[in-house]
Amino acid sequence: MLDWLAHRARISANSLALIYADECWTYAALNDFVARTAGRLVTAGVRRGQRVAVLMPNRSEYAALIHALARLGAILVPLNTRLTESELGWQADDADCAWVICSRETEGKGATLVGGNRQIFSVDLPHSPVVKALADFAAVDVGLPEFDLDTVQGIIYTSGTTGRPKGARLTFGNHLWGAMASAYRLGTLPADRWLACMPLYHVGGQAIILRCCLYGTTVILQSGFETEAVSRALDNQQVTLLSVVPTMLHRLLEFRNEQPFPSTLRYVLLGGAGASAPLLDRCRALGVPVALTYGLTEAASQVATATPDQVRRKPGSVGKPLMFVEARIVDGEGRELPFGQIGEIVVSGPTVMQGYHQAAQALFAGKLHTGDLGYVDEEGDLWVIQRRTDLIVTGGENVYPAEVEAVLLAHPGVREACVIGIPDPEWGQSVAAVVVSKASDLTERNLIGFCRERLAGYKLPRVMLFVDLLPQTALGKVDREAAKVLLKESVRHGNFCFTGIPD
Amino acid sequence: MLDWLAHRARISANSLALIYADECWTYAALNDFVARTAGRLVTAGVRRGQRVAVLMPNRSEYAALIHALARLGAILVPLNTRLTESELGWQADDADCAWVICSRETEGKGATLVGGNRQIFSVDLPHSPVVKALADFAAVDVGLPEFDLDTVQGIIYTSGTTGRPKGARLTFGNHLWGAMASAYRLGTLPADRWLACMPLYHVGGQAIILRCCLYGTTVILQSGFETEAVSRALDNQQVTLLSVVPTMLHRLLEFRNEQPFPSTLRYVLLGGAGASAPLLDRCRALGVPVALTYGLTEAASQVATATPDQVRRKPGSVGKPLMFVEARIVDGEGRELPFGQIGEIVVSGPTVMQGYHQAAQALFAGKLHTGDLGYVDEEGDLWVIQRRTDLIVTGGENVYPAEVEAVLLAHPGVREACVIGIPDPEWGQSVAAVVVSKASDLTERNLIGFCRERLAGYKLPRVMLFVDLLPQTALGKVDREAAKVLLKESVRHGNFCFTGIPD
Repeated sequence: MLDWLAHRARISANSLALIYADECWTYAALNDFVARTAGRLVTAGVRRGQRVAVLMPNRSEYAALIHALARLGAILVPLNTRLTESELGWQADDADCAWVICSRETEGKGATLVGGNRQIFSVDLPHSPVVKALADFAAVDVGLPEFDLDTVQGIIYTSGTTGRPKGARLTFGNHLWGAMASAYRLGTLPADRWLACMPLYHVGGQAIILRCCLYGTTVILQSGFETEAVSRALDNQQVTLLSVVPTMLHRLLEFRNEQPFPSTLRYVLLGGAGASAPLLDRCRALGVPVALTYGLTEAASQVATATPDQVRRKPGSVGKPLMFVEARIVDGEGRELPFGQIGEIVVSGPTVMQGYHQAAQALFAGKLHTGDLGYVDEEGDLWVIQRRTDLIVTGGENVYPAEVEAVLLAHPGVREACVIGIPDPEWGQSVAAVVVSKASDLTERNLIGFCRERLAGYKLPRVMLFVDLLPQTALGKVDREAAKVLLKESVRHGNFCFTGIPD
Repeated sequence: MLDWLAHRARISANSLALIYADECWTYAALNDFVARTAGRLVTAGVRRGQRVAVLMPNRSEYAALIHALARLGAILVPLNTRLTESELGWQADDADCAWVICSRETEGKGATLVGGNRQIFSVDLPHSPVVKALADFAAVDVGLPEFDLDTVQGIIYTSGTTGRPKGARLTFGNHLWGAMASAYRLGTLPADRWLACMPLYHVGGQAIILRCCLYGTTVILQSGFETEAVSRALDNQQVTLLSVVPTMLHRLLEFRNEQPFPSTLRYVLLGGAGASAPLLDRCRALGVPVALTYGLTEAASQVATATPDQVRRKPGSVGKPLMFVEARIVDGEGRELPFGQIGEIVVSGPTVMQGYHQAAQALFAGKLHTGDLGYVDEEGDLWVIQRRTDLIVTGGENVYPAEVEAVLLAHPGVREACVIGIPDPEWGQSVAAVVVSKASDLTERNLIGFCRERLAGYKLPRVMLFVDLLPQTALGKVDREAAKVLLKESVRHGNFCFTGIPD
């Protein structure tokens, strides 16, 4: 099949592909930029099948890199800019990335990834001697190799239940079917403009770039979520679709006060974490067209999405699976459960990833066991009760307790640790830790300093409680529910420490 | 992959799938009807891979049969109800149809197709003893076999350049990609309602049924094109998309006089024949949102489509190919021609059929040589100059001169015959014949009577000219261009016969 962007540029040359800051890119211009970028990458040595880490904030260069790597058949490994050097290093190693591409904003972190056979380029003028400027390589003509739907387009790391992130291998086909299924749920119109303020290193951001190219519509890219900038774009840039997580929507509503959302906005696609009833109520009162979605990196984003009509009728449900996608509820033995019974959500269909990179754990007959709990009601609508048993979702970012616990336990002064999500009005949840220390002189300040070198800021515990013993289950495992109660009680009585991590 | 309708019914149970006359079918109800229909077909003996001819006008039962045969993996062979018994028999034989399904309207013609191992059912109460009522068979549960994109869904006969129709083998994948590409050009919205007044035995009608199922939108099906009924539906049924051929649009404009089209109508998809400049001018003046398309049975309908903006800017061009589809212009040796040069249109992409049924003629490396002439302008927009060299398009139906000539030549009194399309203000073109007779007593009445038994009404010559000699080229072949001039001159001088065939 044809290179998506190249074909789109041929048939929609003068349509707007991308708006970023004061840059406007038509499909023809973006395609030229991508051809040059791909040409420079080839001159620099990038080859088909190699993994290429991209570490930078949202910029038009990032959008171009997504297309350029696809054109070369090199595999995009988008890295979360909020991760620490050690976290980034682990992912770059795990994916066996031969190359890292950074920008001026990430050059420092990026440079630490160089080593072995791994080299680094910047899309800007580099300062570090180990970083080369991509612009210094000649933009040779790379032609237009065919796209194959079964080829891996990218590896996106997701928090892992086992304490280590896992790389989800997404194919061109996964993205193609995801784009199609999304269009058949939300609709697509030639004049659509999708505002992307979510990071492109997350599947939800990246999907916007690929979808709009397939649809022939416009991406309005912002460097990140800035409440005022998003609000201004809604009012002035004819945005028709907006993807956000609850924290962002919450801020947007606060900022706009009672100002209604413009009628050009068809849908606000709300995902990444459970939306609270007050948030949905407020959106309903203001007429904000919220489409509530349950998405997964491993399923090229949306699995089920409730349209605004459905959200109004049944607030909190994420509605039906998208076309071609199945979401079933199963018990511990994998047996499908009847309506109303809570169990694990299992997803299948052409949007489900090929599997995890480097992981022995395979998909069982194309079925993705999400670890998320939910049920399907009598009308077939899906309700997500809890994201992957212990998963903490804070401001749209996923944090697995196991990963934070592993770091805490690596500290020589820590005997036991249990990490828990506690409710937070703005972030949905925040991270809290209950710790048993070996040494009496262990302080939260000391421990947080240790964590800060090893964990992205959003994963750091905001609250810490030191105890003599962790509550245990009859089987001798940590009793998380009891630990939660303990923490709640302690917070009520003021017996805990703020770790001083700012929100 | 999942059965399309079954999955759609699961996720859009209460959405309107189909409106026909005073019937309203939700997706759940349509799916039940289809399950029953499929069950009856199995009990009657229909098996996976068999070819099943369907001969009936547009009715909800026809829509259900399209889905039911797909579910069974039986191959739909839609027959044009306007064909004569001998034409129908030829197609049913060529496709080796084991079954014919008719309705009360077509029972007479249908019954003539019975014989050998071929049986016939009616969706109504039959009168003929050879026709069985489908309702008399038990509706067993057929389950939901998977769909395979590479499996043939249907064989649709198109007029053949060689005098015999050819069966285009369309797969589920062809339809899926066609639906996707159409959505990415025209957009799709959850509230869309597509009015189908084109026959379901044509690809353009059938595609509406399959697309709306994939999109989850509504088909408004009409038994055929009745100007007043279509006009009324536009005003009262929130139609957003309408597919027509120029003759239909012409009549609709006449009927509505200066009455504007409702603002609910997003697009009038105009295809099937070249649209005249006056027709497009009139649409522009009235604000009718015409999207002009070049479609082919062999490419699961649309190849290139110009949106209303493009039609206004460049009336007459069919615009750019759809996403994933390529249309190139080649010379006699298959070499691609530069911008502006006229040549044969060659189409490739995932919407292009598997090949013709029973035909030795294969696709050359997935490339469909259409026989249609056109060029691509500097901006990459396609202009169709002439449908397949000698093809006559009359009221949206394709007539190949070779097919009519073969019948004329089969008459014992005819020595030579040349069939030509002549301009017609309402039908676009009508069929004319220049004939050299062997016997002096051959009359046009006699000859037309002979043709009428062998050719559908729309293929019969409206005008006939008897001559002593047909003009010839230097190579001794009939000179069609000279014959056209001869006919034009004769018509101007009144030296011709009206054959009395009504329009």
